[in-house]
Amino acid sequence: MTRSLPDPDALADAVASGDRAALARAITLAESTRAEHRAVAAAVAERLPPGAALRVGVTGAPGAGKSTLLDALGAMLVGRGHRVAILAVDPSSTRTRGAILGDKTRMERLATDERAFVRPTASGGTLGGVARQTRAAIRMAEGAGYDIVVVETVGVGQSETTVRSMVDVFVLLLLAQGGDELQGVKRGVMEMADVVVVHKADLDTAGASEAVRRTRSALSLVPPPETGLHPRVLAASGATGAGVADLWETVEAMGAELRASGAFEQQRARQRLAHVRAAVADALHARFYADPAVAAALPALDAAVAAGQITPDAAAERLLGL
Amino acid sequence: MTRSLPDPDALADAVASGDRAALARAITLAESTRAEHRAVAAAVAERLPPGAALRVGVTGAPGAGKSTLLDALGAMLVGRGHRVAILAVDPSSTRTRGAILGDKTRMERLATDERAFVRPTASGGTLGGVARQTRAAIRMAEGAGYDIVVVETVGVGQSETTVRSMVDVFVLLLLAQGGDELQGVKRGVMEMADVVVVHKADLDTAGASEAVRRTRSALSLVPPPETGLHPRVLAASGATGAGVADLWETVEAMGAELRASGAFEQQRARQRLAHVRAAVADALHARFYADPAVAAALPALDAAVAAGQITPDAAAERLLGL
Repeated sequence: MTRSLPDPDALADAVASGDRAALARAITLAESTRAEHRAVAAAVAERLPPGAALRVGVTGAPGAGKSTLLDALGAMLVGRGHRVAILAVDPSSTRTRGAILGDKTRMERLATDERAFVRPTASGGTLGGVARQTRAAIRMAEGAGYDIVVVETVGVGQSETTVRSMVDVFVLLLLAQGGDELQGVKRGVMEMADVVVVHKADLDTAGASEAVRRTRSALSLVPPPETGLHPRVLAASGATGAGVADLWETVEAMGAELRASGAFEQQRARQRLAHVRAAVADALHARFYADPAVAAALPALDAAVAAGQITPDAAAERLLGL
Repeated sequence: MTRSLPDPDALADAVASGDRAALARAITLAESTRAEHRAVAAAVAERLPPGAALRVGVTGAPGAGKSTLLDALGAMLVGRGHRVAILAVDPSSTRTRGAILGDKTRMERLATDERAFVRPTASGGTLGGVARQTRAAIRMAEGAGYDIVVVETVGVGQSETTVRSMVDVFVLLLLAQGGDELQGVKRGVMEMADVVVVHKADLDTAGASEAVRRTRSALSLVPPPETGLHPRVLAASGATGAGVADLWETVEAMGAELRASGAFEQQRARQRLAHVRAAVADALHARFYADPAVAAALPALDAAVAAGQITPDAAAERLLGL
């Protein structure tokens, strides 16, 4: 079944008017592997108003309770009059895709709420693809008038670095249970966090307080991030709702402090520059392998490399000399 | 203090003869940011015999006991007549570098053993740089006659994927303690593992057995990797040495099975092809930004992007049109 390509003007109007199906379609076009789909998406993006959302990244290991917390947080925020978009980044292989996307159905309250938009972002296979698609989804959601955009990641491969590079405030979920709250959290990820949430605090109140204390102590050893704001640590439970309002107050306060110090705009400027570099790298790759001489030489050269008849470095040199 | 560049013939001879200082120097040259250093390193690599090491990757969260286990494993292997090189991949920011490299001093037995070579691989800043440098270090160590090359990573960012892409057998360390042995382990990493070691098993024997059982059960749900070999799970303790011989027997048996099925050579062929692609991407990047027109336009364009006067996608398009 093929659908004809939508008119960018009409689709942009529908997205900007708050039509969630139109937004979903625009994101699907941006995620497409077909260039003509992406061209329509780019035209839609150009026509959308710029938007002005606070961008919040959320990460945590599987089982940390991201969906439960985001369901509670999102429900609270729409209740306060916000429009909330939740985009999930899933750079995992096709082997695990199903399981991760399955998570989305767990946001029961939010998924059925008109004021919210919950969307798993499909993987483009490559990291560059994931970053490009997520940036496009953020752009579309902002153009659709969502004033809070949450980008959630399960922490596969480099996805946390990718998400950190496109949000204003980055939240890390840890579990209240477990002896060592640092155990298993990637070093670099703890350092990326603006807010650390000790989650499922309802299951072990004493353990949660202790985990908050120890996480604060651990973070005091880490130099502050480029924004200059030291990370905050708090306990919460998506299941009971305890601490969820606190969490949002903390995120909002951090956003306000960043704006006041100028760090907000500096961070966005750095992110835009990184976006340029990534877009250039993607295009250089596409151009190089589309070159007829490269395309013609590649199969034989690949076969020789695979067979060990030529070293990888020598093969690369030969390709680059074409 | 500057040293003159070494003669590639002389350095290659010294490396091939087993001179550890020469090997260290050759790796340092390969890691250099200076092109003339890397050219000498490439010339050395060309002159070295190919080598025939089993390449083993080891990952685990900070605190999993990688250094203790590798010290015990390495000491056992050199005692059996092997020559063992242990290379550490550290793609972390300069902010955490000190702490991770500090780990190396913990391999007390091995660091002083003539038959072993222990080396932290410095970060090149970019992922491409880390991969390139690690590949070069593996090449040098193999050319120096080490028959077992262990590449260790602490699991920052995409480092596990990087290491997986250059080894034959990949080992993941989990802790025997802790309620959920999957907690905090990146999904994709569990799927990459050929051997899972429940480590520090001496501290909690019952817990370790239970962790082994549950890890096996969890892994039974994961489809087998491309090599077709299902992952093995065992308990070990670097501190007491328990299970260390078992671990090596398992790794070696896996290597033998891979060779027998042809999967060993298929995997190496895939890795060589990925190496070509990575080398091409690195070179395209370097070439593009060395172009005088790009170099001339970049500062003003970057400033416009940072100021929000032009979108990142439009800036990328303009650069690519130069």
